[in-house]
Amino acid sequence: MPVHYSPPTAESLSPVPGIALGTAPARIKNWDRDDVVLVVADPGSVAAGVFTQNRFCAAPVIVSRAHLAAQRERRLDFRALVINAGNANAGTGESGLAGARASCAEAARLTRGAPEQALVYSTGVIMEPLPLDRLVDALPKARDAKRRDGWFAAARAIMTTDTAPKGASRRVAIDGVDVTVTGIAKGAGMIHPDMATMLAFVATDAPVAASLLDALTREIADVSFNGATVDGDTSTNDSFVIAATGRARIAPLVDRSDPRLAAVRQALEEVAVDLAQAIVRDGEGATKFIAIRVEGGRDVDECRRIAFAIAHSPLVKTAFFASDPNLGRIVCAIGNGAPRDLVPERVSFWLDDVLVVERGGRAASYTEAQGQRVMKQPEITIRVDLGRGGARASVWTCDLSHDYVSINADYRS
Amino acid sequence: MPVHYSPPTAESLSPVPGIALGTAPARIKNWDRDDVVLVVADPGSVAAGVFTQNRFCAAPVIVSRAHLAAQRERRLDFRALVINAGNANAGTGESGLAGARASCAEAARLTRGAPEQALVYSTGVIMEPLPLDRLVDALPKARDAKRRDGWFAAARAIMTTDTAPKGASRRVAIDGVDVTVTGIAKGAGMIHPDMATMLAFVATDAPVAASLLDALTREIADVSFNGATVDGDTSTNDSFVIAATGRARIAPLVDRSDPRLAAVRQALEEVAVDLAQAIVRDGEGATKFIAIRVEGGRDVDECRRIAFAIAHSPLVKTAFFASDPNLGRIVCAIGNGAPRDLVPERVSFWLDDVLVVERGGRAASYTEAQGQRVMKQPEITIRVDLGRGGARASVWTCDLSHDYVSINADYRS
Repeated sequence: MPVHYSPPTAESLSPVPGIALGTAPARIKNWDRDDVVLVVADPGSVAAGVFTQNRFCAAPVIVSRAHLAAQRERRLDFRALVINAGNANAGTGESGLAGARASCAEAARLTRGAPEQALVYSTGVIMEPLPLDRLVDALPKARDAKRRDGWFAAARAIMTTDTAPKGASRRVAIDGVDVTVTGIAKGAGMIHPDMATMLAFVATDAPVAASLLDALTREIADVSFNGATVDGDTSTNDSFVIAATGRARIAPLVDRSDPRLAAVRQALEEVAVDLAQAIVRDGEGATKFIAIRVEGGRDVDECRRIAFAIAHSPLVKTAFFASDPNLGRIVCAIGNGAPRDLVPERVSFWLDDVLVVERGGRAASYTEAQGQRVMKQPEITIRVDLGRGGARASVWTCDLSHDYVSINADYRS
Repeated sequence: MPVHYSPPTAESLSPVPGIALGTAPARIKNWDRDDVVLVVADPGSVAAGVFTQNRFCAAPVIVSRAHLAAQRERRLDFRALVINAGNANAGTGESGLAGARASCAEAARLTRGAPEQALVYSTGVIMEPLPLDRLVDALPKARDAKRRDGWFAAARAIMTTDTAPKGASRRVAIDGVDVTVTGIAKGAGMIHPDMATMLAFVATDAPVAASLLDALTREIADVSFNGATVDGDTSTNDSFVIAATGRARIAPLVDRSDPRLAAVRQALEEVAVDLAQAIVRDGEGATKFIAIRVEGGRDVDECRRIAFAIAHSPLVKTAFFASDPNLGRIVCAIGNGAPRDLVPERVSFWLDDVLVVERGGRAASYTEAQGQRVMKQPEITIRVDLGRGGARASVWTCDLSHDYVSINADYRS
């Protein structure tokens, strides 16, 4: 069960004008359920994406990056996204690339576009051959099943061992016109190993220009998915795409100075943060959701490094699992993530409202009972003040429990 | 029980002429055993050390660094090392520093030296006040109990929740004279949380000049302790000191060109590697010992980064715990640790003698049965060839088991 998360319902995910989604069963694994999604975007849509930094990135990542670049270069619309669960198509060499390209070609045929107008996501076991025939055979069925309100079915079809589907919607009024943002994601709920893949797709009917959408996608990824961590392993398949169909009847959003952009950006960011947090709340074996905020840094990078040093420390994570205010471990993690010239005597940190460390040592006011009270909560905020500047960063993580080990020590088959 | 490790015995640890060690009970924690060690070095000894890179380093680390610098600057002998288990004296501010200095002052009084001639190690819970009075009271008793063959008793006194004492000895003949190297270490066996501290002390009677010993200590740390990892958390207290008493009746070793240096260096390195591996073999909850060797890199740094990315991946570690050849996880970890310009198509890796990946994809010859066979062993080597140069690095780690979580989720008291 995800920590403090109400999964979406079919009703809570608003259709985005210009987007339809269909699902079908391809038996990529031996699952008796829909495991392939075809997202179809109306002509006039644009998309932007960010992908894993892992150097062994998967074939669908290589192909989608190339297709997005071609869309920009040749001013092509974004027309389709193919998603399969059950096989990551990573570490699969030339045949994997051919499979990812063939999936896009079939999606293009079904949407009467060029292959470069299609993108592809895969999630599942690494280093297993992709059952391409079954995937391609399922795509016409997914096309026939496509619906404007197909978001919830798609959120379920892309699950691997997530314990709940993940989706979010926002609506904002721009120039008196309702604009919709809806997104779905999967990841980090891998009872079955090797499903370490984070996939997210968000669409809006706001008419956002392609170059502006590129910049927004990177910025939003940085404050949402790039702040989520369960176990510190960046997968071979992480992919996040935002599509803008332009169907909302408002004047195009073309540059940053447009005052209407703030509301659209805010809605996109809220959906992305919701999805990123949902992934952590449904992290493998998670019993606690931990928000880490590091502020007072010289730049965002040093704040992020310290936040991730805390988030990735197995000693910190097991202390949260045990509700044990063993907070010297957080001090140790700060010291590991910190730049060489950090002055410990300027560092303070709080657990929710409890001051634990001030001037680099245990706060005079701190009592074990205070720490114990906060550690028992299912949702906790660690706030660190570095006392050396105005930069800040936020990261979300979960605890490290026995279930994490059980989930990942289970055999794959 | 450590993996494939025969703990030392009182007989297996050779005395080092010029070194005596005494232990005493100080009840730093509520343990009914000796928990304080005083190492006394004869006049004419020199020492060199390397310490944690954690920015929140502990008071004994700050004081020992300063005292070693003073020994160099003022050409002072090394005379004493105080070690206490049960309290890390970290995150303890000014009073912690005063306590570390007072321990050295008492050791200096007992050995008729200056405080700067004494060093101090602490290991235990972080952010708890040091019970200085009990520590100082125990030092005269440790001095009275000191013996040339006190190494084994010292190895036991510095244990926190290590499941076995750790020590090693080597003897080499130089110019027809027997030279001894003996060392002890503790760490990574922390059934009680917050004992993430690695401490090691090695002594030789070889007459190694101070400046040469400084360089040797750094080099040996790099190929021994700096290659050991259990959970990726660098503690606030890590300390490694080599002392050379000069009591062996051979001409002094002063510079690198001395052909006799190789044998001494080899003995020091073997003792340090033995101790570093012992720490990993006794890692918290360890059921497997995993040696990771990355070769064919452009420089040692990139090899180490990739080796540690593998060693720190919880997904890789849980797969080893399960004896599951889920080797896509190793591919993913290589991709995470690799430099941006790594060419996956040039990468190969082996599990012991089994070729798993060649040219960036699954090897044609690889079968699941081969992987399964190796994964069942208690000791496994991962060898990665990056195919881009001649540099290499070795790292040792253990698996991530249910016992790791239990050990670290146990409450401190």
